[in-house]
Amino acid sequence: MDRIVKLPPRTVERLSKYRRLLYKYRDLDEAHIFSHRLANMLNLTPEQVRRDLMLIGLNGNHRKGYNIKALIELIGNTIEPKENHYIALVGIGNLGRAVLNFIRKAETRMNVVAAFDTDKNKVNTTIAGVRCFDTSEMENVIRERSIRIAILTVPPEAAADTTDLLIRSGIKGVLNFTSVSLDVPPDIYLKNYDIITSLEEIGFFI
Amino acid sequence: MDRIVKLPPRTVERLSKYRRLLYKYRDLDEAHIFSHRLANMLNLTPEQVRRDLMLIGLNGNHRKGYNIKALIELIGNTIEPKENHYIALVGIGNLGRAVLNFIRKAETRMNVVAAFDTDKNKVNTTIAGVRCFDTSEMENVIRERSIRIAILTVPPEAAADTTDLLIRSGIKGVLNFTSVSLDVPPDIYLKNYDIITSLEEIGFFI
Repeated sequence: MDRIVKLPPRTVERLSKYRRLLYKYRDLDEAHIFSHRLANMLNLTPEQVRRDLMLIGLNGNHRKGYNIKALIELIGNTIEPKENHYIALVGIGNLGRAVLNFIRKAETRMNVVAAFDTDKNKVNTTIAGVRCFDTSEMENVIRERSIRIAILTVPPEAAADTTDLLIRSGIKGVLNFTSVSLDVPPDIYLKNYDIITSLEEIGFFI
Repeated sequence: MDRIVKLPPRTVERLSKYRRLLYKYRDLDEAHIFSHRLANMLNLTPEQVRRDLMLIGLNGNHRKGYNIKALIELIGNTIEPKENHYIALVGIGNLGRAVLNFIRKAETRMNVVAAFDTDKNKVNTTIAGVRCFDTSEMENVIRERSIRIAILTVPPEAAADTTDLLIRSGIKGVLNFTSVSLDVPPDIYLKNYDIITSLEEIGFFI
């Protein structure tokens, strides 16, 4: 199946979530799942799930639901890059380490291949399997290793300058874990993760 | 204005994000912002922003956009609880510490009032301003302090059991930072944060 490029961001995000939820069932032969079960696990409506899956060309069986193996494979074909993605992690504090460990344990084509920090005690060490470079080497390392995505876990006061440097170095996507709202050019895909927003959403609905 | 309870989760999430972006402009008198500017900063369409704000009863001025102070106030009235929310953080590893520091610096009514861990070296200490209790005290502490939201930053193998214990203790909302997909009863509001999903979304769009 050809890669569908017109999917909206939210759909891609949900497809990725469906797949990760389904991974744990994939060794079951002929296992099926209903849209309402997937919907329940993710606070979505069954209609939303069915609409997303229809967008990638999949219809459920009314009696049995969706075939889990087929679902995992089709989502993979749709959203997964043909080759691996190379990622830089910028800022190795507590959050940076936690993120590195999280990614290392996950099954994904997302590979963190370099970390950056200004702390001389961290530079030239290996942290959670990843080499840490001095921030002054950023431009060279990012170009040499074809890194196109950066995870930003620096202190808030360093967020804006670091982002500018990343973009000058050729980064095309940023996952921002700082509390700072960043200005990026339109060709850069910025995704903010804001813990407070998630908590406020939970607070509203409980 | 009465609290609108029918807002969908995504709308609440976006309203929270609009407000947090706008905080930095609020000291400007009579400052306005256009929907397309807000949309740009969050990878949304201007139509989406206008629809969200119309839902809470706000129309922009065609020439000037939205009054920023009014916007912040109205979003606050809509999504903010009348009283503070009390939160427990469960699992004080690197991620737990990072989350605590993040929340402490933010302007929010979300208060982390207790942390839990099984590590005897952490129990009965204060970490990032929060008292750490032994996990065995969870049920008592949560009830005594009226805690209704938990942030889950435990290792994956502890995620399911810890969640069961939290729910038995009266927790109504969970922000899950583990990579484990949790089964919770329908009256519990579960929000998963999955770093891999965010990275896959970025990878798709760059």
